[in-house]
Amino acid sequence: MTPPYLLFDVGGTDIKSALSDDAGNLMGIRRVPTRRGTANPAESLVDQLHGLGAELLAETPSVRPEAVGLLVCGIVDEAQGLGVFSANLGWRDAPLREMTSNAFALPVGFGHDVSTAGAAELQFGAGAALGTKVRNAVMLVIGTGIAAALFVDGRPLSAGGYAGELGHSAVPGGFECPCGAHGCLETIGSAGAIAKRYSLASGTPVRGAREVLEAMNAGDPIAARIWNEAIEAVSFSIAQLCASIAPEVVIIGGGLAQAGEALLEPLRRSVRGKLSYHREPLIVPAQLGEDAGLRGAFLKAKEARGAGA
Amino acid sequence: MTPPYLLFDVGGTDIKSALSDDAGNLMGIRRVPTRRGTANPAESLVDQLHGLGAELLAETPSVRPEAVGLLVCGIVDEAQGLGVFSANLGWRDAPLREMTSNAFALPVGFGHDVSTAGAAELQFGAGAALGTKVRNAVMLVIGTGIAAALFVDGRPLSAGGYAGELGHSAVPGGFECPCGAHGCLETIGSAGAIAKRYSLASGTPVRGAREVLEAMNAGDPIAARIWNEAIEAVSFSIAQLCASIAPEVVIIGGGLAQAGEALLEPLRRSVRGKLSYHREPLIVPAQLGEDAGLRGAFLKAKEARGAGA
Repeated sequence: MTPPYLLFDVGGTDIKSALSDDAGNLMGIRRVPTRRGTANPAESLVDQLHGLGAELLAETPSVRPEAVGLLVCGIVDEAQGLGVFSANLGWRDAPLREMTSNAFALPVGFGHDVSTAGAAELQFGAGAALGTKVRNAVMLVIGTGIAAALFVDGRPLSAGGYAGELGHSAVPGGFECPCGAHGCLETIGSAGAIAKRYSLASGTPVRGAREVLEAMNAGDPIAARIWNEAIEAVSFSIAQLCASIAPEVVIIGGGLAQAGEALLEPLRRSVRGKLSYHREPLIVPAQLGEDAGLRGAFLKAKEARGAGA
Repeated sequence: MTPPYLLFDVGGTDIKSALSDDAGNLMGIRRVPTRRGTANPAESLVDQLHGLGAELLAETPSVRPEAVGLLVCGIVDEAQGLGVFSANLGWRDAPLREMTSNAFALPVGFGHDVSTAGAAELQFGAGAALGTKVRNAVMLVIGTGIAAALFVDGRPLSAGGYAGELGHSAVPGGFECPCGAHGCLETIGSAGAIAKRYSLASGTPVRGAREVLEAMNAGDPIAARIWNEAIEAVSFSIAQLCASIAPEVVIIGGGLAQAGEALLEPLRRSVRGKLSYHREPLIVPAQLGEDAGLRGAFLKAKEARGAGA
């Protein structure tokens, strides 16, 4: 396998790791809980990554990795290689790229998890399926929370790591948010909010948004109201983007996207109803699933190897 | 004067024209009504520009212009040199750059009026006054309507001409808009809306937002309500941008910006109240006034001359 890459996709809950070859084929994918609550979260992360890398390489002793691809959650400064802030994992301005490079003695390609997964969706997944080069796109990941990656005029939009925080933009009908702002999209449009709001309103606890969709399909009016309010909220935020950055394509990923057309069809209708002369985006499902992050980490690792060679 | 540029800033109401030298010093600035209602709006415009250019050059017969800078309103495709759409002036997919270049037998630098005026504000006006290179900025022009220019990661954001249509993004409390959408910022946050809404609510017709501000300062509660609702609406849209493209600076221009701190101070407070971990932008007044467009046209003309040389 030449050249091999060591790939890590670090989320607030778990870390996915894998090896890949130069074509991006993933091998040995594993998922472990992210170590949390330590005094030195950045050191602790790099230590955990080093252990995971050793495990992957122990399985294929002949392999000599040539670069690492590392994605992390939170606010990320890709240019400087910094984990600027992670509410879940606790670091601030941590030089994660350099620390990881020192730990492995390898070049490290470093990026934001959602932003880089979005780049992979454009290159290998939903974007590739469209058959034309998409220059303006949004990848919206709707799960427990809501995150987004923005691509404008053919480039990822970073703004020092602060771009794409769609989950924490206000929508009509939104509620107080743990982030400290009011009305955040996440409080009404996320899979987490759908499940929580239905449990509260119906008195029937559910584990996820899928059960709310099933209840709606069985005729439950409370489920229908909460599902529709979520779609209305997400479409409000998409319509805002149509007026500001005007994407040609919106790719919907995350757990809620598993609802397929039950989500996408009314979402398209609701967005269309909010636009006039604006450019109406295609709204399509993500295609890479949970591996999008690792596929993105591969792009970063390959870039880092090229820069170092 | 070497090398001289012929500059035009074409709005829905009037055309500003001038000559400039290579440092961007404007000479012979004039403003005339834009010819409207003709059967061939693009041909009619280029004909009018040719006449204006002849007038400017007649005043300084020794001058040989080397390039033209042309800005137009509406949806503009700068890369292709097209006026894609203008609701006010009526063209669709008009090759304005090529037509103008043929009319003058000169290279033409072509751009969108608000976007290019924003670039001039960053380079010569409010951006220059900050003393640091601003990479992420929004120029918000609040007048009869509301338009915006977005700058991300150090570049203007175009999205094929559809970016920055902030006046036609929805805000809570917004009304039906002539554009066909509901709740557009322009229907509540523009100087035009402030004057119109006050006239209706008070039964006292006013000519502009300035009179509403004066009424508020004199203790009129209707004026205060309408002024504050406008600020709330504009701050909602700015906060949306803080979550999506995260500008470091928001430059406020247009007629309403003449209110100065009576607008800016409550606007800053209202934006701040809507953010949590987001990056809070500086909110500053534009500095170039009505010449921002011509200064931007100079940048475009200079670029076109460089490309042709």
